[in-house]
Amino acid sequence: MPSTHKSRTNQLQHQLEVLNDAMQSGTFASVAHMLNGLKPEDVAHLLESSPPRMRHIIWQLVEPENQGKIVQYLSEDVQGQILEQMDVQEVVAATEGLESDDVADMLQQLPNRIIQEVLLSMGQQDRKRVEEVISYDEDSAGGLMSTDLITVRASVTLDVVLRFIRRHEELPPATDSIFIVNRKDQFVGVLPLSRLLVSDPNTTVREIMTTDIETITVDMNAADVALLFERYDWVSAPVVAESGKLLGRITIDDVVDVIREDAEHNMLGMAGLSDDEDTFSPVSKTFPRRAVWLGVNLLTAIMASLVIKLFEGTIEKVVALAVLMPIVASMGGVAGSQTLTVVIRGIALRQIGKNNFGWLLNREVVVGFLNGAVWAVVVAAAAALLYGDMTLALIIASAMILNLVMAGLVGTLLPIGLKRMNIDPALAGSVILTTFTDIAGFFAFLGLATWFYQ
Amino acid sequence: MPSTHKSRTNQLQHQLEVLNDAMQSGTFASVAHMLNGLKPEDVAHLLESSPPRMRHIIWQLVEPENQGKIVQYLSEDVQGQILEQMDVQEVVAATEGLESDDVADMLQQLPNRIIQEVLLSMGQQDRKRVEEVISYDEDSAGGLMSTDLITVRASVTLDVVLRFIRRHEELPPATDSIFIVNRKDQFVGVLPLSRLLVSDPNTTVREIMTTDIETITVDMNAADVALLFERYDWVSAPVVAESGKLLGRITIDDVVDVIREDAEHNMLGMAGLSDDEDTFSPVSKTFPRRAVWLGVNLLTAIMASLVIKLFEGTIEKVVALAVLMPIVASMGGVAGSQTLTVVIRGIALRQIGKNNFGWLLNREVVVGFLNGAVWAVVVAAAAALLYGDMTLALIIASAMILNLVMAGLVGTLLPIGLKRMNIDPALAGSVILTTFTDIAGFFAFLGLATWFYQ
Repeated sequence: MPSTHKSRTNQLQHQLEVLNDAMQSGTFASVAHMLNGLKPEDVAHLLESSPPRMRHIIWQLVEPENQGKIVQYLSEDVQGQILEQMDVQEVVAATEGLESDDVADMLQQLPNRIIQEVLLSMGQQDRKRVEEVISYDEDSAGGLMSTDLITVRASVTLDVVLRFIRRHEELPPATDSIFIVNRKDQFVGVLPLSRLLVSDPNTTVREIMTTDIETITVDMNAADVALLFERYDWVSAPVVAESGKLLGRITIDDVVDVIREDAEHNMLGMAGLSDDEDTFSPVSKTFPRRAVWLGVNLLTAIMASLVIKLFEGTIEKVVALAVLMPIVASMGGVAGSQTLTVVIRGIALRQIGKNNFGWLLNREVVVGFLNGAVWAVVVAAAAALLYGDMTLALIIASAMILNLVMAGLVGTLLPIGLKRMNIDPALAGSVILTTFTDIAGFFAFLGLATWFYQ
Repeated sequence: MPSTHKSRTNQLQHQLEVLNDAMQSGTFASVAHMLNGLKPEDVAHLLESSPPRMRHIIWQLVEPENQGKIVQYLSEDVQGQILEQMDVQEVVAATEGLESDDVADMLQQLPNRIIQEVLLSMGQQDRKRVEEVISYDEDSAGGLMSTDLITVRASVTLDVVLRFIRRHEELPPATDSIFIVNRKDQFVGVLPLSRLLVSDPNTTVREIMTTDIETITVDMNAADVALLFERYDWVSAPVVAESGKLLGRITIDDVVDVIREDAEHNMLGMAGLSDDEDTFSPVSKTFPRRAVWLGVNLLTAIMASLVIKLFEGTIEKVVALAVLMPIVASMGGVAGSQTLTVVIRGIALRQIGKNNFGWLLNREVVVGFLNGAVWAVVVAAAAALLYGDMTLALIIASAMILNLVMAGLVGTLLPIGLKRMNIDPALAGSVILTTFTDIAGFFAFLGLATWFYQ
């Protein structure tokens, strides 16, 4: 009987410990044996879960003939690190037996010069296939598709189709349907294997094929492809040229990767990280990557400081302002992030357009006002309690309401505006937003205070 | 020829506009006609993309017999809103022809009393199936599985299998393989349809079935199920009881939803939002949901203020401290979020364990120190420029380094610690972290200043 998952998870944990011990004691022979008995997907997971030095040792212990199968399952960042260490012949060997879209993904991690060398070392048919896929944008339907597919004509009977299929030694992975094309190789419809299996062999393909299917054009954005797969529960789907010519097919396994990356992109992007970030990338890579984002943030923080500096005179008189001002800025930042996150997700799911945008903006402003009002009461009470100063309480309450309304406004308008300017809101949105809410918060609070106290 | 996607997107946009106009002018007949000609998936998307009032109108215009097919494609939050308005008979009608896992998902949005009524109104066989699925945790393999599957014995020939399959009118959705069980109904292996189609009809199932497959136990966490599907590129997979008995199967379309929700959970959770958040939920729902998170943040902001209050005396003497202190806190918050985000993602991908945790902590502290040092130089220069005070420059530089090291430390330890205590780090992590970095930042900066200036 197959092993259950629980034991498998423990097993992988155990394997990591064995590796760790082996690295300390130097008993590599048994580890190598264990590694080469694992599925390539599992070795890929071990590699992803290991710091650089152990990753290097694991890779040395993997048999060369297993390397290719493993590399295709690695995330881009790690894939790049591993491929860098291989020579052209090793890379070519590693691509053997892989689907053309997976080979294209692998090659795109390499420098252009090496890509050409690898392509020249491949068989002619394989090279043509990979060259075709690689010519498309990595983030388009063309970059996701495999050119490996089974096509038939609409006029033949199912019996003919069944015999045609039986001539194959195996079908391409995730084949759930075969595609029907006309004499010009234009896409006409699909025939799901499940329908083929339950239908009378004497019917023709035309009688039972599905033609009412959205097709994917080769230049469609990968995120749009993923939304179509999600919406229609597809396992595979045809990709066509503008002319209607069938070029290839996209399978759900590659779409799942797109969905994962897109969703992670939004999460990681908000912290200024890239979506293929290797969890165990070394200090030498992590440090400069993060530094850029911190530098941008430092600039905006200095801008906020300059706003505070305008009110130094007031703060000198009423030092309580210095104590309370971070509250107003912080609440604006959090409220703004909530709005920003909801709007970025709505944009990613293609839910927001000019028809509902006004409603959304209105809701965010109203919610900002209501939350501002509720928490203004609490913060005013806290200020009155700490300082016994009702003017101060009134000032901070007003500033809080102003800043939360501002946060709702900017949190909605900013991502939509950035998207229109083709700037990724997940990446730039949060830093611009908090700059706004910090500056607005300090301005409102210290400005009102200056007006009241002077 | 089928329509291409570009025209379809424009079409959906156009439909939204037509709806909008109709709502204004009251010409609903043609809109109803248009709606009932759309695929249920597309109507679901229109509903998701509409503010409450228009959502209500769209729903009124949908023919009752189409409602069920549409409801299953809605996200949980919207599903709940729609189901609330239906009576028991309408809900029962809506569940007809759906898979048992989809019905269970729908029912779970309803109050318990209504669930019982709906179950009693269903046919006995359907009721039993749904009751089985509903008895499992929604976030477990049992909650994801459908009990609708095709099983055969290992001893029969493929010819028998093919004839058995042909007796069905149609196969369950996303059937890419059939399952093999023994006399005790225990899972033995799978037979992919693609292999069935290319093999000699006279071979037996035993000769060509795959037995080397990880099985999913019924209590496995949904996120773990998703990771297995992702890792092994499955389209469907069997679910077994502890005893090895085959209970059902999980299909990729439901797994895709889990992946999307999990990834969104991490992004939305960091802003204190729930993952099934309806983009167009009304003010009455949005306001209280967001208020809770803002209230938690207000508490932490007041705590940070109390720290500042300790140093009022110093600020009164050197007002420049008030101007510069937000910089230190802000940089700590951003650096900490970067670490937190990477670690939360590593935990979600099951990459972080006791073997590599020490390495990770060390890297984050080193990166925090290096980034602290680099930006300390810049911020010290800015402080010296603004105030011509070298002591102040030295103080802010030291505080910056201290806070960024602290951010790396807490950003790594916090999510791992929360996870051990079974608290979701995506939800609680960011608010606790920024409390730490704010307080540490203010303490370091104002504390050092007090020491130097007094």
